[in-house]
Parts: sequence; structure tokens; C-alpha cells
Amino acid sequence: MSQADQACMARALQLARKGLYSTHPNPRVGCVIVRDGQIVGEGWHVRAGEPHAEVHALRQAGPLARGATAYVTLEPCSHHGRTPPCADALIAAGVARVVVAMQDPNPQVAGAGLQRLAQAGIEVQVGVLEGEARSLNAGFIKRMQHGLPFVRVKLAMSLDGRTAMASGESQWITGPAARSAVQRLRAGSSVVISGADTVMADGARLTVRAEELGLDAELAALAMSRPPLRVLVDGRLRVPAAASFYQAGKALTATCAPVSAQQPLLDDGHQVLAIPGSDGHVDLHRLLSELAGRGANEVLVEAGPTLAGAFARAGLVDEYQLFMAARFLGSSARPLLDWPLQQMAEAPQLKIIEMRAVGDDWRIIAVPQIQG
Amino acid sequence: MSQADQACMARALQLARKGLYSTHPNPRVGCVIVRDGQIVGEGWHVRAGEPHAEVHALRQAGPLARGATAYVTLEPCSHHGRTPPCADALIAAGVARVVVAMQDPNPQVAGAGLQRLAQAGIEVQVGVLEGEARSLNAGFIKRMQHGLPFVRVKLAMSLDGRTAMASGESQWITGPAARSAVQRLRAGSSVVISGADTVMADGARLTVRAEELGLDAELAALAMSRPPLRVLVDGRLRVPAAASFYQAGKALTATCAPVSAQQPLLDDGHQVLAIPGSDGHVDLHRLLSELAGRGANEVLVEAGPTLAGAFARAGLVDEYQLFMAARFLGSSARPLLDWPLQQMAEAPQLKIIEMRAVGDDWRIIAVPQIQG
Repeated sequence: MSQADQACMARALQLARKGLYSTHPNPRVGCVIVRDGQIVGEGWHVRAGEPHAEVHALRQAGPLARGATAYVTLEPCSHHGRTPPCADALIAAGVARVVVAMQDPNPQVAGAGLQRLAQAGIEVQVGVLEGEARSLNAGFIKRMQHGLPFVRVKLAMSLDGRTAMASGESQWITGPAARSAVQRLRAGSSVVISGADTVMADGARLTVRAEELGLDAELAALAMSRPPLRVLVDGRLRVPAAASFYQAGKALTATCAPVSAQQPLLDDGHQVLAIPGSDGHVDLHRLLSELAGRGANEVLVEAGPTLAGAFARAGLVDEYQLFMAARFLGSSARPLLDWPLQQMAEAPQLKIIEMRAVGDDWRIIAVPQIQG
Repeated sequence: MSQADQACMARALQLARKGLYSTHPNPRVGCVIVRDGQIVGEGWHVRAGEPHAEVHALRQAGPLARGATAYVTLEPCSHHGRTPPCADALIAAGVARVVVAMQDPNPQVAGAGLQRLAQAGIEVQVGVLEGEARSLNAGFIKRMQHGLPFVRVKLAMSLDGRTAMASGESQWITGPAARSAVQRLRAGSSVVISGADTVMADGARLTVRAEELGLDAELAALAMSRPPLRVLVDGRLRVPAAASFYQAGKALTATCAPVSAQQPLLDDGHQVLAIPGSDGHVDLHRLLSELAGRGANEVLVEAGPTLAGAFARAGLVDEYQLFMAARFLGSSARPLLDWPLQQMAEAPQLKIIEMRAVGDDWRIIAVPQIQG
């Protein structure tokens, strides 16, 4: 692939990222139309139900699209959804060449849009900056391919791997820059999940607050227009409807409690999802599958060691984001994850893919490795 | 200060660093002699009892030293030690200007060498790259100013802050690059301290192994010629003389056990240091003070959570070097430090001064902060 192709696709990815906080359940997509080395049209997908990236870019390019090259971060759609197929729009505009970063991840349709373009005589190229494109839509891809969302577990910990004092005291172990980063993680997620203990002990609301996002006005407004669904895992419905979590807005509660116990929440306009479980614990795989069915691409788990540990033990975590504060909380403080292991051979291996300073704290991004 | 001065001092510091593994109990010192913008002499202090950096550099410069500038990373000595005063040598050679990175840290003599130079009509400048010079000799400086060594605690931990399984199983949680870095930490220390539990459970010997240092042949040979003193803290003399720690070479044992119990160690040629203690625990401050009295600049503590925690709780740690492996050892595994804390307000604040990849692991260097 040429350097020019890479540069144009990099710009298309940059545009796609503007949709980080608003496209879900759709993927983030950017498009650049280039003619004689000049960008003549740019677009990105803003929100589900609104035009796709290609449509914005073609509108901007107008007649200049004829004979031009279109760079798209994802294979153009070939089916009639809420908007007409983008492959048809590119053909109608007379585009000569289409470069895409990656195929449609849905195995049922992958390649159909490209085939349609090729049959119309358009030169098609796939795989430019594919890695970046895939990581931008890891949640959408996982949902399409596996019927499950991408699960990110966020934990704030001390240098010695502790999340709170034994008493539960924990507020603000990380600083404002880390909290702002967590706000952006929430805003980019389709769903934020917490557990009963966290919501009761810390009064957690898991809301997105525009002023803490640290985004420009345009992106902040978009983020606030598509906030994540707040989901509470509360197997026994221990959290009362008066809790600040419920008072902060409509929520969805996953529970294995009997229907009769759900009425107060339903009366307040919250949703309740009955999920089978054992011993009062919701089946988390079932929960994730249900959420994927509702269009959840990325799920952020913000919970204490018990619930975060349950996701970890079940092998449901795709990525850990550990915000590390430069303190010791000591040996009687709470663990990172409730996950008792007896032998080294059971100790899960991870790969640290990023480690960087976030204000006075550090962010570690680690992904579980398949055990060899 | 000029850029030229900084560049010459940077070279002098680079030379000084060649003494990282061999100058103790002396400081690491480098010297560069520059005439008309050309380096005409270079030297570094190799080993205590051998010539100082200035002497090597002056020898190399010969008559070219007359009218030249000498850059030295530490104030030249003005007293007769095992070698004649370097200030006199610089004067005798006819050097016109002397630039030093830092004064002698010994408050009793600080400035005397510079004064002698100035009185001989030599232009003197102090403080070029002082920060780098100070960090290169943090142990020597602390011993001169406080009568205590610089204490570095090395710990190998998992991502969740654990050092071993509850059973004690712990071998090789970090990889070969981290182990090589630890070998260099040992080699650069005057003393390596461990505790009875570590020595008995892991068969730790705390030796320096030339082939694992990852140094060039010259530095490796120097390191092996001045290995650190291996010190075992064993309040009750639980470790038998047959343990691999003692079999690996002569060692020093700090204990509060009665003299009668010390005989087997003395018979084998080991040293025993009787240190008062309470409840069978050696007074660590006293131990460090004794070691400083014997010329220990830098002490590396390589111990389990109990002894490392005891140094931490006593406020005796200057720096933590945490080697972090990308694994979870789980919530029943051993803590980083035995240091039970009840309230957040007691939780010690640190500053992370370095975080970087070491092979597949990460090294975090953190220093305790004075509580505000």
C-alpha cells in the first residue's frame, strides 16, 4: 500500500474517532474522498439513524467525486438499513476507487459491499491500517462475530494492588485526570455495569458528567446525547429504588429475584431484566448476551472486587484498565479482584499493552492472554 | 552555565558511571580535562584505594593540562586519604579553571577543596548538572550527611500487587530481563539484605552472577571484584549454617540471639553483628547505622513482605523498585508488604519517578513522599 493511501486512511480514522461517544450501537466510521491528491470531501458517522460517513463525504465532494478515490474505515454497507446502501451511493457518484481499512465484521455479509463495488467496475482495496480500524470498533466487531459485547473492567488501585481500605473507605484514591479518563471511558461505552455493593457503599451513580469529560463542546454534547445505559447487577434486589443510582436517571437492573420484588423499580420507570442465576448471583454470560442483543458494543464494568472478580473468573473480560495511584493502602486493604487462586499454574497471564501517566496517576491497560 | 560546560560535565558523568559497580565505599567520580575545546584527558575512579578520577585524567593530559579546564563530577578532595589530595594535583598541573557538579556532601569538609583551588588562583564553578551527579551518588551523600545508607527495596509483584501464592510458591514471576536488572541492582549496592524466611523458603543466596549481569566484560569483572556484602537479618538465628545462603560465601548475620548461638556461624568464618531488638526482631535503624559505619552507601533489601514491610513501616526506605509481571496472582496470594493500615489517612503517598518496560515485565521506581 502507498504512503498516500495510509495518510488518507489515517485521516479517515481521525474522523471516525469523532464518533467515539455517539455512534453506538453502530460502528465508528470515517470517510475521505481524494481527487488528484486533494481532499474534496470528508465525513464521519455521527449517530445511529443519521447518514453514514460516506454520505457526508460524497455530499461535500459533489461532482468532484467522479473519478475520485474514497477511503472508508469500514466496508461500505450494501443493504437497506435505516439509510440506503452506501455502496450504491459511491457507485452513483462515479467514484473510481474505494480503499477500505477492514471488511464488515458480520460473517453473514462480509465482502458483499466490496463485491457490489467491484461488479460496478470500481477498483477496490482492503486492509489499509486495518489494525487501527479494528481496535476502534473492537466492541462492534465482537458483537457481530460472537454475539457478546467487548468487556472492559476499570479498577482504581494503589501501587500495592488494593482498591479500598478494609472498612470500605476508598473515595478518591486517584486524581482528577484519572477521573476524567474514566468519564470518557463511560461516555464511549454502550453500557456501564456496577454491582449492589458499590452502589450502596459508595453511592455510585455511574453517570456521565459533561464538565468532567475534558472534551471539546461538540464532542461533549454528542456524548451527552447518547449516554451509556446504566446497568445494575443486583441478584437479590438489595438496592432500594431510593438509592442515588436510581435517582440519577432511568436504569436497567439485572436480577434473579422474583417478579413480585421488581415492582417498585418498574413503577419508577426502570427496566428489569430477569436473568437466571445460582445462589443469588446473576449469570453474567447470559447478561452480556442479552445486552449484545440490545446493541451493546462496549461494556464498562465499574464495580468492586466481588463483581469485577466474578467477570474475571468467568473469563468474560477483554481488557482491564487499571488506574494506579502512587500510594500504599497496606496489607489489610481490599484486593483488586476477589479471585482466590491456590497455585501459580492457575495464575492468569496478561499482556500489558499500554502504561502511561494520567495526571499524578498511571493507567495500565492489560489484556488476558490465552493460556498456552 | 554554557552548553559546552554541560556537554563536558555530561561526559564526566558518563565516565563516573563506569564505577557504578566498584567504587563503594567511595563515590563514583568522573573527570574530563578540556583545552581549546578538545578533550585532552579523561578519567574515572575505579576502586577504593586506587587513584581518583582527576589523577587518571591529569596523567592522560600530561603537559596539556596547563591552562586547561577540568570538569569533575564531585568536588576534588583536599585531604590526605589513601591517595594525596586531588586539589593539589590540579594546582600542580597548572589547570586554569575547575568546574564541579557538586560540593563534597560531607558537611565537615564541604567547600574546602574548592577554596584551596580558588586560593591558588584557579577559576571555580559549582553546580553544573548537579541533579544527575547527586542521584549517581545518592548513597554516599546520604551516608555522609545522615550516617545512614540509601535503602532501596526491590520487590517482584504481580499486576494485582502480590508477591507469591499463599503457599509460598513464587519462583520466577518475572522474566530474565527483570532478573538481570536485579543482578545489576545487587552489583551496584554495598550491601544486600535479606531475611530468614526468604533465605529458608526460596533458598535465596543473593549472590552476583557475572553471566546474568548483562554488562560488558570490563564492568562485569569490576563488579565481581567488589561484590556486595550479603547480610541476613535473622533475629532468632533460625537459618542453619548449612543453608545455601551461607554456603554461597562469607556473610554477615544481624541477630539479637545470644552469643552462644552465634558460634556455628563464626566457626564457618561468617561475621555476626549483635543488634538489640524486641521480640526477636532486630532494630533495623541500628542495623543500617552499623552498616553505614562500615562504609555502606547503598543497601538493597531483597526480602519477603515481612522484612520489607518492617523497613517500610519504620520509614527507612528511600526507594522502591517494583518489578511487575503481567499476571494476576489472586486475592489469597501474599501481599506486597506486611503493613496493615486502617484508614486512608495513614496510607503513605509515594511519587513514581520511573515506569518502563523490562523485557515482558515493567519496572516501577517509586519514592516515599513526606506526608503533608
